[in-house]
Amino acid sequence: MTRILDGKATSLSIEEELSKVVQDRLNRGLKRPHLAAVLVGDNPASQAYVGHKVKACSRVGFDSTLVDKPTSISQSELLRVVEELNKNSSIDGFIVQLPLPDHINDQEILEAVLPTKDVDGFHPVNAGKMALDLPCFLPATPMGIMSLIERAGIDTEGKHAVILGRSSIVGTPMALLLRRNNKPGNCTVTVCHSRTENLVEHTSRADILVAAIGRAHFVTADMVKDGAVVIDVGINRIPDESKKSGSRLTGDVDFESVAPKCSWITPVPGGVGPMTIASLMQNTLQACIKKDA
Amino acid sequence: MTRILDGKATSLSIEEELSKVVQDRLNRGLKRPHLAAVLVGDNPASQAYVGHKVKACSRVGFDSTLVDKPTSISQSELLRVVEELNKNSSIDGFIVQLPLPDHINDQEILEAVLPTKDVDGFHPVNAGKMALDLPCFLPATPMGIMSLIERAGIDTEGKHAVILGRSSIVGTPMALLLRRNNKPGNCTVTVCHSRTENLVEHTSRADILVAAIGRAHFVTADMVKDGAVVIDVGINRIPDESKKSGSRLTGDVDFESVAPKCSWITPVPGGVGPMTIASLMQNTLQACIKKDA
Repeated sequence: MTRILDGKATSLSIEEELSKVVQDRLNRGLKRPHLAAVLVGDNPASQAYVGHKVKACSRVGFDSTLVDKPTSISQSELLRVVEELNKNSSIDGFIVQLPLPDHINDQEILEAVLPTKDVDGFHPVNAGKMALDLPCFLPATPMGIMSLIERAGIDTEGKHAVILGRSSIVGTPMALLLRRNNKPGNCTVTVCHSRTENLVEHTSRADILVAAIGRAHFVTADMVKDGAVVIDVGINRIPDESKKSGSRLTGDVDFESVAPKCSWITPVPGGVGPMTIASLMQNTLQACIKKDA
Repeated sequence: MTRILDGKATSLSIEEELSKVVQDRLNRGLKRPHLAAVLVGDNPASQAYVGHKVKACSRVGFDSTLVDKPTSISQSELLRVVEELNKNSSIDGFIVQLPLPDHINDQEILEAVLPTKDVDGFHPVNAGKMALDLPCFLPATPMGIMSLIERAGIDTEGKHAVILGRSSIVGTPMALLLRRNNKPGNCTVTVCHSRTENLVEHTSRADILVAAIGRAHFVTADMVKDGAVVIDVGINRIPDESKKSGSRLTGDVDFESVAPKCSWITPVPGGVGPMTIASLMQNTLQACIKKDA
């Protein structure tokens, strides 16, 4: 029987837990957590993502600040924005929404974020602590996937996880987290990518298959083992005449053909996406709690 | 036909190249590279490793400084040693030889090393940059293995690499480096460890097998595919009555039975070991060159 890994429902439980913690903090006279987001330019997808994050803050009772800057902002001006957020003690954590305009050196901006406020987990110090299995801010998407697996009670111990994609934001962190000596964790982990030979041989051996390559419906039924857990990280926009907008969002997995073979599968939308935002909220609370200490 | 990946010979070529660069630097009036090593206590293996590093410095024409401290050194005293080396502008890079005594918090010491002098690549900033595929100091053992593969002209593109071991010092970095979009690199990478189920199924599919688990002769012929490249990172001391000392060093691979099946294999000793030291020398030169700029 196929069960749905319901990211929407799970993220709502996390948000409820967070709301209670915030209420408890306020009752104890402690500070309300405060997340800031830097949005550069007018990319509609970025605007939508930042909008979702601001709304999530409001649902869980966090303060939020949106710092909106034009596409024409210079590198040094953007660095100054980051510096101000680093120094602003009312802000516990902040993110710089990617992608940034072409003339901006992304890496320099991400490295300017104070690691203790880097709730996206993109600073090298946080990436390094993750690789070294030390406490740190985990990137929100992999963190959300680990929560989803954990809260569904899926046993990962000794299982073979195959990850499609080697990005810094999803593929690489997922490989590190799934092979950790932890629960969930302790998987044997294989990372596949565009240069992998005999891809289907690898994917069809996976007890847990994570698709993070950004190609609509790439994973088909013949690539998946019976009883696999399938995690779909893709968010691809494809034409759909039945929709008013003429398009809809879909994952990297051909859900219709793959789902019947799975023990668990995430839908798109409503799977990994909402978990990413819930994880960002959890990181922001942690940043706030660390500042109390 | 089995060919030997001769780490001894390869490390000597690297040392020759380094000597020429040093001579050229001196001719141009530039500074001689300078490595320092902090040795705590009287662990004979640590003394031997540090001794090898000091001798390598002398062979390639680097200055070296050995900072020798008693086992009884306190955390704050050791932190002060690190701070002094950070500030000492004549020293380009330094290492703190592990393991440290039980009463010392290793991680705090390693994180106190200035990332620009961290030629062992153990600071979270360097580990993070490695995970993010950014320029950094790579840990010496994985860096040495990549050089050995590169200089032997072994094609890794699209190949399946299986790594036994998930340590921060070898297994994890090897997984990151072999899957990079680089040459060598672009492997499909599987990481196995103590919790892996059906281990032989994984290892016997490896085009490239890296053994880094610290168990003498663990990898036997039945675990290896015909034609595989086998890299043995193990350094295990086993009894041997034919030796004056009553013991000898051996790897994680049962060389005698495995070698005939391999296209390439590293011996122990004379394989990965000398490459580790050559890589440390390369990192020290890089640290010195960066300081020129």
